[in-house]
Amino acid sequence: MPKTLQDIGEFGLIHKIHSLLKKEGVKTPGVTLGIGDDTASIQPRPGYELLVTCDCLIDGQHFLSDRIHPLDLGRRAMVVNLSDIGAMGGNPLYALVSLGLKTDMPVEDVENMYRGFTIELNPFGASVIGGNITKTRDAIFIDITLIGEVEQGKLMLRSTAKTGDAILVTGYPGQAAAGLKFLLRSESKKDLGKHPLVRTYNTPTHRAREGQAIARSGYATAMIDTSDGFLGDLGHICLDSGAGAELIREKLPISDDLHQAALELKLDPYELFLQDSDDYELIITCAPENTAKIRSALASVSDVAVTEVGKITDSVGDIHLMLPDGTHQQITPSGWNHFSKRE
Amino acid sequence: MPKTLQDIGEFGLIHKIHSLLKKEGVKTPGVTLGIGDDTASIQPRPGYELLVTCDCLIDGQHFLSDRIHPLDLGRRAMVVNLSDIGAMGGNPLYALVSLGLKTDMPVEDVENMYRGFTIELNPFGASVIGGNITKTRDAIFIDITLIGEVEQGKLMLRSTAKTGDAILVTGYPGQAAAGLKFLLRSESKKDLGKHPLVRTYNTPTHRAREGQAIARSGYATAMIDTSDGFLGDLGHICLDSGAGAELIREKLPISDDLHQAALELKLDPYELFLQDSDDYELIITCAPENTAKIRSALASVSDVAVTEVGKITDSVGDIHLMLPDGTHQQITPSGWNHFSKRE
Repeated sequence: MPKTLQDIGEFGLIHKIHSLLKKEGVKTPGVTLGIGDDTASIQPRPGYELLVTCDCLIDGQHFLSDRIHPLDLGRRAMVVNLSDIGAMGGNPLYALVSLGLKTDMPVEDVENMYRGFTIELNPFGASVIGGNITKTRDAIFIDITLIGEVEQGKLMLRSTAKTGDAILVTGYPGQAAAGLKFLLRSESKKDLGKHPLVRTYNTPTHRAREGQAIARSGYATAMIDTSDGFLGDLGHICLDSGAGAELIREKLPISDDLHQAALELKLDPYELFLQDSDDYELIITCAPENTAKIRSALASVSDVAVTEVGKITDSVGDIHLMLPDGTHQQITPSGWNHFSKRE
Repeated sequence: MPKTLQDIGEFGLIHKIHSLLKKEGVKTPGVTLGIGDDTASIQPRPGYELLVTCDCLIDGQHFLSDRIHPLDLGRRAMVVNLSDIGAMGGNPLYALVSLGLKTDMPVEDVENMYRGFTIELNPFGASVIGGNITKTRDAIFIDITLIGEVEQGKLMLRSTAKTGDAILVTGYPGQAAAGLKFLLRSESKKDLGKHPLVRTYNTPTHRAREGQAIARSGYATAMIDTSDGFLGDLGHICLDSGAGAELIREKLPISDDLHQAALELKLDPYELFLQDSDDYELIITCAPENTAKIRSALASVSDVAVTEVGKITDSVGDIHLMLPDGTHQQITPSGWNHFSKRE
């Protein structure tokens, strides 16, 4: 029988986590006090602003604990937060991890979750500096607060897109949405490897390095990650910038995998691209003459695909999809709306 | 019928919260970007370290949603975090609030929770600068990350108590433990007002101002808040300082209310004082010749009682209780151990 949290108790678990982080994590500069007191403490760098974000994953809502390995779950929970820091042009530094766990959970599963955190944090020299662990009788959850830094004045906002700007997107949104549908069909953990898009859903890729490079270039006017789905987040850019958008359907980057998946699922690939999907790509706007500069800023750190899909217009809140026959379709931003009736 | 979260949706709720915070909250200096983008952003003050803590309250574990008013719940969740910042000698500044809520929850209840947050934050000029809201089908939870600041080098640790130090405690620990027992006996929200100690449990007092004053004085050697119970947290001080402690039972500050409650509950008041209790008082250690200076530092900001209850010894991890007959009793630190079998 594997040891459970009940067997080793809260302080036993904290001790194990502490040891794991010491061995497998990195030391981040600026930490004046780490895990083990009432708070952690950091010494911020002069000339930088600190970015702070938190995102929470709940079993049954944002992941399915019987269909994801604990290590992947840890990675996924951290990626969601890394993506937010990256979308502001920032560099991730310090994580606080707050967990709600069940007493019968194997200790090894929690250790693997932390391993997942360090796998994602280590490449940035970032680390877990504190957190909280509590018992829950219900769905387990992982709530992470991530602190990053950005050079003063280099912050990338969602509210500063300009009429006429080109709209660019990294990668292939929609793949995670299809992956989730395959995952819901699978019957056990063993099925997980069966479809590449299931992997895309369970361990999405963040674009934090890409976001930093774009911010440094100074050529983007606005940026956001696609955590609310492509259309949801383009909607945030439009609404917050007091603008609209025109998308050209044939330019939307639909991957071969997504085309194939849409066929199998009998769904429209464009719907999968536009709607809720946990891909954590970036939407970037820039003056049309600067798209090549954005491309080369991205190419300096990553081989991610980047596609120009349309432009920002002056009709506030109005997003249009141009179809191949010259007609257009008005589309309403949706994105995750956790309490709406339609769910 | 009151409006529920399902009626107004996630973005409707965020909009309402944003408006409430604008109207009833304060503006904290240093916030370069508040709620509404992928992250918040702050500009730390030179010469200060930042303190970061997070604490999570789950329905059924840390509160009983049918026996606490949402405003008090908001206050309670924030107090728990203010207490941690205060125990380090810090000043609270920025809060991130991550909520797991049910779709059938009245919007007004969430607004009242935020009202509770602002009631606690406003006196410090502190504010909510971001967060996350997600749907849960199970127990609701409130997970708060609080960021504070402390002058460089003025951090108060738990690991720096010295042999021979006096042990001081603020207020009257144990009252919240008794309050919880009365609360569990009550049959409805209407009963809540019936016992003063129920109020002590539901809306505990933090000692953040007192903690700051003690840190500024420079006379304390170690400090901790009693979030794990008096004995649990004295145990943390001893273990982390490589020391032990000797307590004099007759000096433990047992309030008249607690004496009376112990009689009614047929429990030992000293047990209630020592064991798990959500009072959020401070344990302070200092050289014996400095106790008067600690008292006057406290008196400059607060009329809270402060009692000398014993001294730090050199027997590592060993805590003794001296009884009136001259004998002594060894007592083992416990404190909240969320996963242990005894719960």
